[in-house]
Amino acid sequence: MLHFKNVTIIGVGLIGGSLARVLKAKKLADEITGAGRGRETLERARELGVIDRIVPGPAQAVKDADLVVLAPPVGAFERIARSIGPKMKHGAILTDVGSVKGKLVTLIEGLLPSGVHYVPGHPIAGKETSGVSEASATLFRGAKCILTPTHKTDGNALAAVKTLWQSAGAHVLEMEPDMHDRVFAAVSHLPHVAAYAMVCAVAELKTDSEDYITFSGGGFRDFTRIAAGSPEMWRDICLMNRKNVLEMIDRYQFSLNMIKRAIRSEDAGKIEKLFRSASDVRKGLS
Amino acid sequence: MLHFKNVTIIGVGLIGGSLARVLKAKKLADEITGAGRGRETLERARELGVIDRIVPGPAQAVKDADLVVLAPPVGAFERIARSIGPKMKHGAILTDVGSVKGKLVTLIEGLLPSGVHYVPGHPIAGKETSGVSEASATLFRGAKCILTPTHKTDGNALAAVKTLWQSAGAHVLEMEPDMHDRVFAAVSHLPHVAAYAMVCAVAELKTDSEDYITFSGGGFRDFTRIAAGSPEMWRDICLMNRKNVLEMIDRYQFSLNMIKRAIRSEDAGKIEKLFRSASDVRKGLS
Repeated sequence: MLHFKNVTIIGVGLIGGSLARVLKAKKLADEITGAGRGRETLERARELGVIDRIVPGPAQAVKDADLVVLAPPVGAFERIARSIGPKMKHGAILTDVGSVKGKLVTLIEGLLPSGVHYVPGHPIAGKETSGVSEASATLFRGAKCILTPTHKTDGNALAAVKTLWQSAGAHVLEMEPDMHDRVFAAVSHLPHVAAYAMVCAVAELKTDSEDYITFSGGGFRDFTRIAAGSPEMWRDICLMNRKNVLEMIDRYQFSLNMIKRAIRSEDAGKIEKLFRSASDVRKGLS
Repeated sequence: MLHFKNVTIIGVGLIGGSLARVLKAKKLADEITGAGRGRETLERARELGVIDRIVPGPAQAVKDADLVVLAPPVGAFERIARSIGPKMKHGAILTDVGSVKGKLVTLIEGLLPSGVHYVPGHPIAGKETSGVSEASATLFRGAKCILTPTHKTDGNALAAVKTLWQSAGAHVLEMEPDMHDRVFAAVSHLPHVAAYAMVCAVAELKTDSEDYITFSGGGFRDFTRIAAGSPEMWRDICLMNRKNVLEMIDRYQFSLNMIKRAIRSEDAGKIEKLFRSASDVRKGLS
């Protein structure tokens, strides 16, 4: 049976908070400590019963923890791993929920003393609204959670983290850290870059009296919703997964140019063929 | 009081069918005739009470109509206008719901005999699902409907079509046909092209065992939904609004290149600034 005496969540937002709620709902932890920069967020999390106590500084917060969950923006991972590594208990597990893996996994592994077991993870879950007030024990139900173990990953720690996510109702998959970053550059990071670019391209246009965007229906509004994500978080993701993101932007530009050429040359058959191949993809997704 | 004896809807899909439902709900028409290519759709529309009778051929269907609503894909407008123009009653009104205006308006005006009053229109409404089964008298409630009259447009006919859309609950605006096409190239046609390009770029990528897109969360799925629109319809729109669509693709590529350069040069401040300007736009949209 999976059980932790002390769990510390660093970064108690939607994801960290929801995992805390799972730990409570499934009685997987005796005590949950919240750490992180936002004092108000931590207070709110405690009021809501998401965490039991607050120890703002990560290094202090992890001392007694059997399980530490790293859930701040990925840009903060390295700094936090450096400060908590030396303070973690021998035998404790560190896991994370970051949307970039690859070299970051190797980096974090290098910062931890032997005897601290790192299991890199990435639950594919979210909501339009973020923050601990939205945290829910059901957020991960039916979602995929990707674990990206390396040859250094401890088997028992991996099994424990896997069981944890399964308890949350997630479907757990394993993937190489580098493959993870290639996949998510394509299905997540590129769409965000494309949405930011779309909104930048259109936002300044005006008729005599009104912004073009006041006339937007479904299509454009979906882009503004995607582009509403935290600028700092997406900046960090683009920088940390730079090579793959740049490759995917190139690939996207190639595809965009193909459609542009077909429209420019009024090649109706080619335009329809390209559009049809894309619209057929929907049928394959649930 | 607005009232029509005979109304003919050519193309009884979601939009044409919903307008028919408004005409019924508000008792604005004695009889509604449905015309168009899809015999099954027309039968279904009659079963649902959306229309009263079926006369498949547009030229035959418009003979007694005081109001004709053109609601097939825009690619069919010219052909249909050519065939119905000579058959329409003196004093009858022709309106449409097409998402391209500009030169198409001039073209249609040139095809109609004097005494037939054309009022070009474009309701900004839709649903994820299309087809007459989804038609609803409330579809246009709170939506914008843009009318694009020219110096040739009859004032009384314009007033009648305006009242019709207001009866549907729409907020009616007037705009120059060319301005309409510039605005919709930006807020609607470009997002669709971008979504088709995105899905084309990512759809073929695979890990050893699975398509990348099986891992897609919110961002990419929004693109697949936008790209699920009818390939023929969007092909026609791109061809008929070609100049503006190409200009907007250029503008989009410029914006995408700016982000790409910032990521390539690891200019964190620039990336964040670009992302922030886009994410702030959301706050200005309801």
